[in-house]
Amino acid sequence: MALTVVGSIAFDSVRTPFGERERMLGGSAVHFALAASFFTEVRVVGPVGDDFGGEELGVLEGHGVITDDIERIAGGKTFFWQGHYEYDMNVAHTEDTQLNVFADFDPKLSEASRQAQMLFLGNIQPELQRRVRAGCREAELAALDSMNLWIETERDSLAAAISEVDCVLLNDAEIRELTGQPNLARAARALCEMGPRVVVAKRGEYGAALFSGDEFFAIPGYLLEDVRDPTGAGDSFAGGFLGYLDNRRAAGESVLNHAVLRQAMAYGSVLASFNVEDFGTERVRSLSRDQIDERLRDFRRITHFEAEPVTS
Amino acid sequence: MALTVVGSIAFDSVRTPFGERERMLGGSAVHFALAASFFTEVRVVGPVGDDFGGEELGVLEGHGVITDDIERIAGGKTFFWQGHYEYDMNVAHTEDTQLNVFADFDPKLSEASRQAQMLFLGNIQPELQRRVRAGCREAELAALDSMNLWIETERDSLAAAISEVDCVLLNDAEIRELTGQPNLARAARALCEMGPRVVVAKRGEYGAALFSGDEFFAIPGYLLEDVRDPTGAGDSFAGGFLGYLDNRRAAGESVLNHAVLRQAMAYGSVLASFNVEDFGTERVRSLSRDQIDERLRDFRRITHFEAEPVTS
Repeated sequence: MALTVVGSIAFDSVRTPFGERERMLGGSAVHFALAASFFTEVRVVGPVGDDFGGEELGVLEGHGVITDDIERIAGGKTFFWQGHYEYDMNVAHTEDTQLNVFADFDPKLSEASRQAQMLFLGNIQPELQRRVRAGCREAELAALDSMNLWIETERDSLAAAISEVDCVLLNDAEIRELTGQPNLARAARALCEMGPRVVVAKRGEYGAALFSGDEFFAIPGYLLEDVRDPTGAGDSFAGGFLGYLDNRRAAGESVLNHAVLRQAMAYGSVLASFNVEDFGTERVRSLSRDQIDERLRDFRRITHFEAEPVTS
Repeated sequence: MALTVVGSIAFDSVRTPFGERERMLGGSAVHFALAASFFTEVRVVGPVGDDFGGEELGVLEGHGVITDDIERIAGGKTFFWQGHYEYDMNVAHTEDTQLNVFADFDPKLSEASRQAQMLFLGNIQPELQRRVRAGCREAELAALDSMNLWIETERDSLAAAISEVDCVLLNDAEIRELTGQPNLARAARALCEMGPRVVVAKRGEYGAALFSGDEFFAIPGYLLEDVRDPTGAGDSFAGGFLGYLDNRRAAGESVLNHAVLRQAMAYGSVLASFNVEDFGTERVRSLSRDQIDERLRDFRRITHFEAEPVTS
């Protein structure tokens, strides 16, 4: 089993009401890969500069992530993002973005990465997503993330990219903006009509919803007393979601089995919940699969109700 | 079994992107009573003016709601609210509020209303809530709702009222404002420390969360393609929640049985979901218990996942 992710590899400087960190390891591909690594073999495709060292590679490789396709650009600097969050952690305030090597990113996939049965196109330029997608012919399920920037500036390319994947994961506000539909259920249906068989609406602390054909699934957020840094939560969600799906695919399940998709939504939520408990990758990198499964069981317990009258 | 509700009885003029209505029957006690009427006997306490006629009474009585304690103030006019919603239906924009007979509301409960085993104190002045609470000695469970106005202008009275009830239902933003805690889980815990054994955080379209001792439960909103008017959704939630609890209490259940509380949360969500499908009370007044139970089963289906691996 193997899952290839293409996306940003970054250094993030983040300040929240609960502290701050300088130049932490981050980026969509990193958060995704660490979350997915608990379930399957992950290959990361993305560019870094000379400032990306053995320590950063070691975090990924320590989780079994295959880093052969991390491209080091001689003389370049790694993508850098700086921002802060107020108490409302659903909104990130960007202070500085330096694309650096990411500005001219031209994804080069090894034969092994192209052979992956699952593909995640992190939030990069839609035309790059399309090129990668076209090169990965073996993918049983290809998924993409995007953002408001591409909705507003490269709408046609994004629509084409969406039509070429099986699954789209976006924030609910992005789905509304993309489709012009203020109602999420209608917006998700309109997005499905653009091509993908599965649409996942990420709703921040409020959880997520899944739309697939006539099927629908909603899950609340796993409520935490301590949220220290939400950066990367959406990518950790995607990593848990697709990582678990690839794990079950390798065990012979259909990736469109709705009961499996629901579990994948729960695993995605669990990984996102761990992600936000500490800065950057700090919490996820110290996780174990047992801790993940324990939280999944707890999550089921706190969201479960019976439809028939219960008695004590 | 009997459930007494004290609150506003109103005429609402509402405009949303999907239409508008003039002087519809509304108010917290009305929305609550209609929702609860599917599960138990409800007595409404509240004032109306000469403009409140037999047609309005008939809506309540047609659902078996006991209206003996609806006080008609001779020469007075019924509470009137006018407002509109944009596409973001989580925010109501008030255009006009005329308290009318509600300005001097002095709740007078008949002996039968005072004997109720369950009590809901709708969003009225906290000192009035306290007086009603003190007069209802038989209540096994007393619950209250409130609003930002009372948090900001009558904080001490509200804190006293909260300390005297078993259950508080508030919007999550109100719980955060009341406790000064930006984190909902911590805010709910701080609210529990003020006295109530059960705290319900209403989260609009995103669902609701319940906190009781060490127990916690979260439920997403029932996703709808058509939301026409969210007015009264919170009171319909409370009515479904407490109505179902009273039904189970009458069947011999503890109202603090957590499995029953979870079901009550689901019923509350279902009643709120019907409420918003049409203007005012239009949808709820045409509902049947069978339709409610059907949606409850559907709701369970679309929120259910297994913690152990599933196979097809």
